[in-house]
Amino acid sequence: MKAPRGTQDLLPGITEKWQYVEETLKDLSRRFHYQEIRTPIFEHTELFQRGVGDTTDIVQKEMYTFFDKGERSITLRPEGTASVVRSFVEHKMHGLPNQPTKLFYTGPMFRYERPQQGRMRQFVQFGIEALGSSDPAIDAEVISLAMNCYKELGLQSLKLVLNSLGDQESRESHRQALIDHFAPVKPELCHDCQTRLEQNPLRVLDCKKDRDHPKMADAPAILDYLNDDSRLYFDKVKQYLDAMGIPYEVDPNLVRGLDYYNHTAFEIMSDAEGFGAITTLSGGGRYNGLVEELGGPETPGIGFALSIERLLMALDAENVTLPLEEGLDAYVVSLGEQADLQAAQIVNDLRIAGIQVDRDYQDRKIKGQFKAADRLKARFVLVLGEEELANHQISVKNMETGDQETVAIDQLTEHMKAIV
Amino acid sequence: MKAPRGTQDLLPGITEKWQYVEETLKDLSRRFHYQEIRTPIFEHTELFQRGVGDTTDIVQKEMYTFFDKGERSITLRPEGTASVVRSFVEHKMHGLPNQPTKLFYTGPMFRYERPQQGRMRQFVQFGIEALGSSDPAIDAEVISLAMNCYKELGLQSLKLVLNSLGDQESRESHRQALIDHFAPVKPELCHDCQTRLEQNPLRVLDCKKDRDHPKMADAPAILDYLNDDSRLYFDKVKQYLDAMGIPYEVDPNLVRGLDYYNHTAFEIMSDAEGFGAITTLSGGGRYNGLVEELGGPETPGIGFALSIERLLMALDAENVTLPLEEGLDAYVVSLGEQADLQAAQIVNDLRIAGIQVDRDYQDRKIKGQFKAADRLKARFVLVLGEEELANHQISVKNMETGDQETVAIDQLTEHMKAIV
Repeated sequence: MKAPRGTQDLLPGITEKWQYVEETLKDLSRRFHYQEIRTPIFEHTELFQRGVGDTTDIVQKEMYTFFDKGERSITLRPEGTASVVRSFVEHKMHGLPNQPTKLFYTGPMFRYERPQQGRMRQFVQFGIEALGSSDPAIDAEVISLAMNCYKELGLQSLKLVLNSLGDQESRESHRQALIDHFAPVKPELCHDCQTRLEQNPLRVLDCKKDRDHPKMADAPAILDYLNDDSRLYFDKVKQYLDAMGIPYEVDPNLVRGLDYYNHTAFEIMSDAEGFGAITTLSGGGRYNGLVEELGGPETPGIGFALSIERLLMALDAENVTLPLEEGLDAYVVSLGEQADLQAAQIVNDLRIAGIQVDRDYQDRKIKGQFKAADRLKARFVLVLGEEELANHQISVKNMETGDQETVAIDQLTEHMKAIV
Repeated sequence: MKAPRGTQDLLPGITEKWQYVEETLKDLSRRFHYQEIRTPIFEHTELFQRGVGDTTDIVQKEMYTFFDKGERSITLRPEGTASVVRSFVEHKMHGLPNQPTKLFYTGPMFRYERPQQGRMRQFVQFGIEALGSSDPAIDAEVISLAMNCYKELGLQSLKLVLNSLGDQESRESHRQALIDHFAPVKPELCHDCQTRLEQNPLRVLDCKKDRDHPKMADAPAILDYLNDDSRLYFDKVKQYLDAMGIPYEVDPNLVRGLDYYNHTAFEIMSDAEGFGAITTLSGGGRYNGLVEELGGPETPGIGFALSIERLLMALDAENVTLPLEEGLDAYVVSLGEQADLQAAQIVNDLRIAGIQVDRDYQDRKIKGQFKAADRLKARFVLVLGEEELANHQISVKNMETGDQETVAIDQLTEHMKAIV
């Protein structure tokens, strides 16, 4: 039997990398003062229809939707923002004294897509959301945290791409301009874009099929349609990024796949050599209006999400080696019934005292146990032979220096705590 | 909109406890030399039918089973062992040089049950599996790790209950004795038990409906049917527990709910006052035969799983306070356009340097910012007024002592690293 298609097992040797990356992201969130939220793996399907957008590919094609035994339609979450906002509204977090509400999450997400490199049906996202502030400084904070997720781990070939989608008014005039621009050639566009032109013309700019259509090159750019408020907001975001020393590139064609973005939108790309076709590492943006859409009071919001799988691919592409710890602190070698019982007690005591230690469970001879200690890169080998046992002692061998000493068993824990 | 019934959101204030508990369990696993494995949230349904057992309540009544878009029957995992063993077989981990293969996992599991206190439809299990050894010392190791999960967090009202279900031969003679014992009163037993008597008579002993039936009191106990090998094995496990100083109580009626157990079975209970009806915290046992059942070579195995929700309830029941960190390192107060830009840069630099710091994003006046710093329990408040800004300085106030000093902005990071 195998794991379902598009899912994977993470085994020892790999999980240590995941742990390291996740610990780093959590610690970075702590320093930026984002606190963890955990929402369920599945939600009522309606949440994503309303919170991600009925016209998106995610909702139309990619969701794991099913009926539970109570005949309710539930869906494995395809992304994190809708759930976090649902939780924010359900628990009335807008009423908490400390605002904005700054949250991070990490966990598996699910999209039924054709599996390919860097795109699994179950994948892990780390993301943050800041709800309750429309200060452009927080847009810059979110972008800085996103960039530092990669920098902190040692990545260097990074590109930050920025755009503004403007407020409602700006989006409306841009929308009209797009319709006017593409309407004369509508029959030449792909089937999806003909629908998009009516429902959400902004997303025509994002189409992979039509990207070489002659009308794409001179399509109206949102930045030319920003009203004064939106332009001022975007200028302030850029000033904050400049103050923080974070370089960026403005790309008026950057359009995010989800329906709910406005104002600031950004993506972080890797331009590492050898990374191959997939270069977008993460993305985010502002989503003023989403909280109301999900039944809460008017509350601005901004966030981003990254794929941990892609982050690990970027580390590989840049040949970054994570500083993972290797090797056991100690391995206890013993032979014979009494020695084995004594060894079990010693191993147990050392572990409780904080030391990483193991022993043999395969009935190996002394030589085999030493080999095992070697394979496990034990820094110390503790030998409990007949003589040691009779004297209530154990011999402690430093495998790096070869030094060996004899220690009374009732002193061993203190002794080991001092040297490992 | 609300989270689906039987699921919950974990919010800031609570997630810090989860993080602390999970970190502790991971560190304990590391010291016992168990390494992390992560398997998918869902599996092919057949895995649980074969690996948990077709006759169990879990498989018959409680699984979240559905068809994906490819018409494959998939199921949200109801427990962890079947997935870990599937992964062990799929990745041929029995061929790795270091045996036994010692694994831990943690993550959400799903059972469609009537939600009640301590029993959610989505709950989080932490568990370990040791595959490839039939040394009774590893049974004791697994039990010790299970006990230390609670002890390490400060729990004291713990009871370890132990039993042996014996090997195949012992189970078979006990099975026949149970059938002979209950057959005369079969019509008096509950409907489920009438079926159990044919399929798996051991589980009649576990029935909540029939527990007061007169034939229960003198039902044949498995311990009286252990053959020599099984009795010797059980004796050795107890000797190892004695050597480790772990007290236990043998309960010949301890029967685990899953079909695949043999030899050692155990449960850990809390007998804390005020814990209420639910007292079982975790359980585990040996499952020689499961690896073959799932298509692998003959491989012994033993493991246990605990519910983190119940662990947290036990901490509450014993009034254990976890040593969680509280309060920000620093809060930066600023007013005015230039000061805000400078503050954003300072905050960003300090965070990158490892310091937890925040600032205002709500357009608060100076007084409101100081109040926010207070609510967030900031240890230092850094004030960037007009004068400080003009002199490229910032004033650093220790909120505990009231001491205040002025620091050059380009020295600030070093200064703060030295004092926080």
